[in-house]
Amino acid sequence: MSAPVVPPPVEVRVVIFGLQSDRLSTLLLPYPPQQWQLPGRPHAASQSLEDTANASVCHAAGPLEIYLEQLYTYGDPARGGVSVVYFALLPTSAAHPESLKASGADWKPVDALPTLAFDHASILTYALRRLRYKLEYTAVGFELLPETFTLTELQRTYELILGEKLDKRNFRRRILQAGVIEPTSHRRAGEGRPAQLFRYRPDAVAEVKARRLFP
Amino acid sequence: MSAPVVPPPVEVRVVIFGLQSDRLSTLLLPYPPQQWQLPGRPHAASQSLEDTANASVCHAAGPLEIYLEQLYTYGDPARGGVSVVYFALLPTSAAHPESLKASGADWKPVDALPTLAFDHASILTYALRRLRYKLEYTAVGFELLPETFTLTELQRTYELILGEKLDKRNFRRRILQAGVIEPTSHRRAGEGRPAQLFRYRPDAVAEVKARRLFP
Repeated sequence: MSAPVVPPPVEVRVVIFGLQSDRLSTLLLPYPPQQWQLPGRPHAASQSLEDTANASVCHAAGPLEIYLEQLYTYGDPARGGVSVVYFALLPTSAAHPESLKASGADWKPVDALPTLAFDHASILTYALRRLRYKLEYTAVGFELLPETFTLTELQRTYELILGEKLDKRNFRRRILQAGVIEPTSHRRAGEGRPAQLFRYRPDAVAEVKARRLFP
Repeated sequence: MSAPVVPPPVEVRVVIFGLQSDRLSTLLLPYPPQQWQLPGRPHAASQSLEDTANASVCHAAGPLEIYLEQLYTYGDPARGGVSVVYFALLPTSAAHPESLKASGADWKPVDALPTLAFDHASILTYALRRLRYKLEYTAVGFELLPETFTLTELQRTYELILGEKLDKRNFRRRILQAGVIEPTSHRRAGEGRPAQLFRYRPDAVAEVKARRLFP
């Protein structure tokens, strides 16, 4: 190539999912005057991409240790730069209220999103597809729940993410067979018989190996 | 942020797998004087990432229409920039000999790689893991084979990628059950009874939906 290469600006964006008021939601920042955007910031050569992603989370929701997974890197010339997008799940109660207030971040339900800036609507659509797909072969659902939970709460989490009702017996059989959760010695009082509380097994890996479809 | 952000240089690299002399191999370019590197080039703001990836493939192996999938984006400061890495499967016979000669590209078996420049050895290790994982739940193997093939050839391809022997009856049962290949009206002569030739179903999608593990 003879012409000098003009490098594109690079930014990192983070799609953060959480369950807010029993709806699958995502954390957005205002984009004045009337739009919203995914948390993110310009990526500097002196940092790692993960550092920039963590700084984006910290700015929006406070210092948090959350699991970030790389989703996709977007880089069409029409976008005006390269965006490395990460993906995270957060119990909404973990976000620091003072950080939300300072940044203006707010949880918005994914089925009733406000107007989004740039191509963030299509990034969110892809992130949601990946989240749903991932849920079918990994134990990713637990990242949205507190440390202990009932099977009903876990099923509800799956239903909220998938956007569909699940058969209770099937769900219980398969989730128990998968061997990633175990009962604790505690029960949660409620209507009727107190419900058994479960937790994820300390040795359970988040990424449950997909059953081999091919040999 | 008060300090101006120094953007990192961005490049695209491509991991190309193929079967060469019955070994799983990857296409590498010389990195003078004595090392090798993944095909790639600097990414310019005026192009899409896919365009840059295709230009990298074209430079190494000639103009080809191959399926490129984004693998991962690397961006530690120690690397000196951001690398967006793509992943491709290529029947080795499809590469243009004159392009290989002009670029100096060569197929190197993944189990006996030469010394690689930069962090390309670890990128290749990750790409290989992803390829093997992908093989277990998708029909990706067909991309390495010619249009028609025998079940023995298909099984051999899977064995070469996975690096392990597979049970013949199990393999045949599962691959036929998966419904992604169909018999053609042709047979290949060889020792003993001529073998049925198969092809991938025109309507088969490359990405076979993983069976739901969770609900």
